Formats: sequence, structure tokens, C-alpha cells
Amino acid sequence: MQEVAISQHLGGPNARLVGKPCSLPELTTPALVLDLETFERNIRAYQHQVNLHGLQARPHAKSHKCAEIAQRQIAAGAVGVCAASLHEAEALVRHGINNILITSPVIGAGKLDRLLQLLDHGVSVAVVVDDQERAASMAAAAHQSGHVLDVLIDVDLGMGRTGVSNIESALQLVNVVCDAEGISYRGIQAYSGSVQHIEDFAARDRIYTGQLRFLSGLIAALDKRGLKPATVSGGGTGTLALDCREGILTEHQAGSYIFMDVEYGAVTLRANDDDARFATSLFLHSTVISKNVPGTATIDAGLKSFATDGPLPRVSNGAPAGTTYAFFGDEHGRLTFPTPTHSLPLGSIVAFVTPHCDPTVNLHDYLHIVRNDTIVDIWQIVGRGVL
Amino acid sequence: MQEVAISQHLGGPNARLVGKPCSLPELTTPALVLDLETFERNIRAYQHQVNLHGLQARPHAKSHKCAEIAQRQIAAGAVGVCAASLHEAEALVRHGINNILITSPVIGAGKLDRLLQLLDHGVSVAVVVDDQERAASMAAAAHQSGHVLDVLIDVDLGMGRTGVSNIESALQLVNVVCDAEGISYRGIQAYSGSVQHIEDFAARDRIYTGQLRFLSGLIAALDKRGLKPATVSGGGTGTLALDCREGILTEHQAGSYIFMDVEYGAVTLRANDDDARFATSLFLHSTVISKNVPGTATIDAGLKSFATDGPLPRVSNGAPAGTTYAFFGDEHGRLTFPTPTHSLPLGSIVAFVTPHCDPTVNLHDYLHIVRNDTIVDIWQIVGRGVL
Repeated sequence: MQEVAISQHLGGPNARLVGKPCSLPELTTPALVLDLETFERNIRAYQHQVNLHGLQARPHAKSHKCAEIAQRQIAAGAVGVCAASLHEAEALVRHGINNILITSPVIGAGKLDRLLQLLDHGVSVAVVVDDQERAASMAAAAHQSGHVLDVLIDVDLGMGRTGVSNIESALQLVNVVCDAEGISYRGIQAYSGSVQHIEDFAARDRIYTGQLRFLSGLIAALDKRGLKPATVSGGGTGTLALDCREGILTEHQAGSYIFMDVEYGAVTLRANDDDARFATSLFLHSTVISKNVPGTATIDAGLKSFATDGPLPRVSNGAPAGTTYAFFGDEHGRLTFPTPTHSLPLGSIVAFVTPHCDPTVNLHDYLHIVRNDTIVDIWQIVGRGVL
Repeated sequence: MQEVAISQHLGGPNARLVGKPCSLPELTTPALVLDLETFERNIRAYQHQVNLHGLQARPHAKSHKCAEIAQRQIAAGAVGVCAASLHEAEALVRHGINNILITSPVIGAGKLDRLLQLLDHGVSVAVVVDDQERAASMAAAAHQSGHVLDVLIDVDLGMGRTGVSNIESALQLVNVVCDAEGISYRGIQAYSGSVQHIEDFAARDRIYTGQLRFLSGLIAALDKRGLKPATVSGGGTGTLALDCREGILTEHQAGSYIFMDVEYGAVTLRANDDDARFATSLFLHSTVISKNVPGTATIDAGLKSFATDGPLPRVSNGAPAGTTYAFFGDEHGRLTFPTPTHSLPLGSIVAFVTPHCDPTVNLHDYLHIVRNDTIVDIWQIVGRGVL
């Protein structure tokens, strides 16, 4: 089709604001805003805690899908990052990230070829497997292409999503991996997604510690056969304190700690004062676009701006205390003020804590980086979207 | 940051399949698939029905965000398309669409300038207003830039989202628009979002007909003052039969009829056999990536592939009858088979009807266009995302 030259700057319509002092109120919305100082404090606090407990950090890029953030996590001491999908890994590699663990089995037409192409480019990429046949076919393809692919055995800690769920299956799979040319046994992955958001610390501790007991048993069984995993990768923001205390993992995969959304805001993360303290760094800024119904306002952020799978977005700034948000269609949200006499002028900016950060970030193309109300940079969310 | 040359074809990893006979099973997933014949039948059926009733078609591009689709809708007889946001309009204009109504008030820093830039490029763009002050400031800016901006008065039919909700406010706003230089009164918009998905035809008829009575009263009041609207734009897929019967609108804004999702599959759309019949043309293809839990399988399509605000995705192909879907995290879905003895091999393709098509399409970059199991084209979803 014919293309008309309407400007499309990389960085979007807010690119013109970068570096302009105190330009935050001029931001075109809906737009994600990252408070740089809080974000950097979160990265430092995380790295400090995992260092202190002898863990390696491999933060999960599924939360941010942003090469600039992965680069900062690595600069702070992370050994690399995790990616949830091949697509995400490819996007990060295209933008300079070269050490990635793909945390889901890579299965599907054309995907093995694409994975091997990453190895052609010299990227240090590892994948997880949870199936013997798949491990064998992957090994054959890698061997034929002249590569050796690093593999972690995916272990199911109780979620039933991916992974092997008993010691016998795990041992058999490790044997297949060790016997095959083309793949190399680098350890195991044991991530428990289902416990991360249990709000009460003691309840989360009880369930997760039971899951880790199974993991310890598996590691002991492997050790007994001379197959002790060099890497045990897992953990999330919700289990960081427990992972540090238990000392079973060698590598930690937290993602949301950099942003801290409404969901994690409700979770008690710290067991004691020595644990890392994370604060909300990610916000969505929106604009009031209609105000004809008393006691309410309509803003330009709806279910194409916020994830809808978790709690509701929470107003953080720009509206009277007690103002609540409701989804109001694809492109709209409704603010309800504490009393019918409250109102906001058209064009007012209202900021929100994001409900569930990962799928919210996935809806956007850019993070607007802010220090003291000045937009200092715009980072592209390079891995957003699918295909 | 340094960029590594990992190939990123426009069209994604499936670009290599275009034109290859019967290549649909080779599709890399998760991927949106559009059945071209059904899609074209839907477009023809819609256009035929609105023509028959003397309406003009202005389909809503918020559902597809795809210039190729807008072009086909216009080729079939539509006068132009609707866009939900300035961002969406700009993306469509960049790809050759030049007649657009933006159906929400354009409010916020920098947006008026961008809107006027569209006029600079000779695009036929119209906007809605629901506020007198805003109409006046928009008129002043347009006048100063040497343009005349076409404006529709946004009328609230009961949803309380945007628009004026009483005759007096509407008359005042029309007066402001008519008196101002820089903007031109082109008519009114009256869209009722809240009734579109009422499943029972009679219940939808009852509520919507009441709303249309208010609209008729408003039009009569305008007519009496010599301000009869040249355009009355509104309607959706759910009210098409009613809009055709009532004859109050002049221009119809349906969006979802081209795709037909799970949500609209549950709605009785036809009042009689003469009304358009729409069938599902849009599917999401996914791949089984883990199968270690009896009676279930994990697929590569989760809440970053499907909208989560509506009903669940419905299996349409590739799994035993009675198989159900559940969200299983950002990148995963769980299939539950009718019995624990059912299973699917790794790599199996499972196709779904999309739950709520608009925000589902917004998650993806490409539509894979299929005729008889051959991928004949890939269309970019140019307006997806925000900013």
C-alpha cells in the first residue's frame, strides 16, 4: 500500500520532550513512565541481596522486554537474563544482549532452526527441556548444525505447567541429555509461579518450603549418581527472601522487583530488615478526556493500556485521594471521585501504579525514563508483542 | 546499544511461508490467522445490508488496526473508517488510509498539533467533541493553522463515557461549533457501547430503542433550529439489525463483524433472514509445548496472546471435542481434555476462536491470511499498541 509521510519517530510522539527540564506534565498519554532513581535502587537492592547469599542474578526479561534494562541488570552484576520465549530472546539479542536462558520449552514449527541461528551468532543461549523425545531431537539438530546447546532440565514444583514432576522422570531426562551429542547438561530449572503472589509471608513460606524439599531430594538423587546440577535456576520476586534463606538455588530469576506493581504491592516480601526493599518505579500516565458525568471522569487508558488479568490499576497521583478506577472499554477508563462534587479539568494527567506489570508493559512500545520530572530518555520495549 | 544482525523480516518468522501450498501447519505460533474467504464474505454481507437500508458504512478500525483491512472495507463501499485514537489514525494514514473519523475526544498535551498535522497532509479527518471550552480552543488552533476541522457532536446514549447527555447541552455545543471559525459542524455521533453485547435480541432491542428515542428527539430539536445533522454516526455489530430497521443513523460504525469472536458468537444478531450473516474468520493458532500432566497440555498462548477481559478462548480445531482452555500465566495456556486418557503430542497445533477480538488483535503484530490452508499473505497490524 501507499505510505504517507506522517512522522513516526522512534521514541514516539514524546521523543521531542527528552532532555527538556520538567517536561513530565507535557507527556502525550497513555504512556508508561519509569522513575529512574527508584528503578536503579531496586536493581542495586536485588543484586546486593543475591550477592550476599552467594546466588547469581539472572533477572527475567519477560517483565520488561527491554534491552536497556537487561543491560543495566547485567552491568549491576547479573550473569545474563531470562527470556520467556524465543521471540523475546531474539529481540533482546538484536539489541546487544548475549547471555539468555529461555525458560519455557522451545517447541513448534521453525523454532529449532531459529534457536540454532542464535548460536550461529555466538550468543550464549540456554534452553530448558521437560521431554525425553524432544531432548533427543533437539540434540540431533544441534549436532548436525555443529553446535552444542546448553540445556537445563525443567522441574515442576507443583504448578503442573511445564517440567518433570518426579525424581524418576528427572533422572531419565538427565540421562538422555547427558548421553546425547549436540546438547550439554548444565543443570536444572525449578520455578514456582503459583506461590509468588501469596500475600502472607508465612503461608508462602510454608507452601514453597515444601516444594523446595522435593527439589533438595531431586538434587541429592542427582548428586548420588554424579549428576549434581551446576546450575539450579529459579525463584521470583515473591520468593526472593526464601530463596536466599534456603540456599538451594544457585541462580535467581526475579522479574517484577524492578517495577513493583499493584499485585506485588500487596505481598509481604521481606522476612527481616536485611532483605531488599523494593519500591514502585513504573507508572502509567493518562489524560482526562471527558467530564460530563458528575463525580466521574473518563481517561484515555482502558484495557489496551493496562493488563486486565490482575487487580485494578491504583491511582498514584493527579486525582483526589480515594479516587477509584474502572475499565470502561478498550481505550477508556472511568475515574470515580470520592464525592460527586469532585472533578478534574479536561487534559489533567492522572498517574497509576500498574496492575500486573508484565502484561501491562507488553501493551506498550516505550518506557519514558524520568528523573525529577524531566524525561531523560525513552527506552524501546523491543520484545513486546508476539510474532 | 549495539545491534546484532538477527534477521527481523517484516512479516515475522512466518514470512517464508507465504505462497507455499498448504503451509498452514508449519506456522510458527502463537499467531493470528485470518480465513480470507470468510472475512471477505463478512465484509460483503455488511456492506450489502447497510446499502440496502440507505446507510453509509464507516467501519471501526479499532477492531483490526490494519490498513489492508481498512482498504478492503473502503473498496467494498465504506466511505472511510473510524479510529479510536489519534495514534491509531496516524498509523492508518501512514499506510494510505485518508478518510478517518476519530471517535473519542482528542485531548491531551501535543495532540491538537498532531491532529492538525494530519490536515496538513490532506487527510480527510473528522473528530468528535463533547465540551464547549474544548470545541472553542480546538477551533482557535485550527483557525490559526489555516485549517477547518470537521467536527461531530458526541452524544451519550446512556453509557456515561463520553458525549453530552441532554438536549440542552447538545444544542449549546452545536451553537459553539457553528459560531467558531476553524471548525465545521458536520453532524453528531451517537454510539451505544453498553448494549452491543446483550445476548438476547429482544432485550437489546428494548434498551437500544429507548436510547434511539432520545436520539430522535435530539435530532428533531436540532432540525427545528435549522441545525439538522448531515451525519448521524454510530452503531456496532450488535445493533446493526436495529440500526437498519430504525433508520435514524446515516453512517454505521461496526467493527467486530469482520472477525466474529467468542463474545459476539453468543449474541443473536439477526432479526430475520434478510439480515447479514457473519461467521468467525479470525483464529489464534498455538502449539503444545508440554504434556507431562495427564489429561492436560500446556500451549504457548497465554495472557500475552489473548485478551483477558471477556470470555475464555474457545478451541476450534486440533484438540478433542470438549477440550477447555484456561489461562496459565503470561505465555502459557492449559488445555484440559474431556478425559485423562486424551493427550496431544508436543508440537501439535491447536486453533482457537478469540475471546474479545479487539484487544486480542492489539497484542499481535501480524495477521496471517489463509485460503484453503495456504498462507497467501501477511498483513501488519499497523496501529497496535499505544504511542
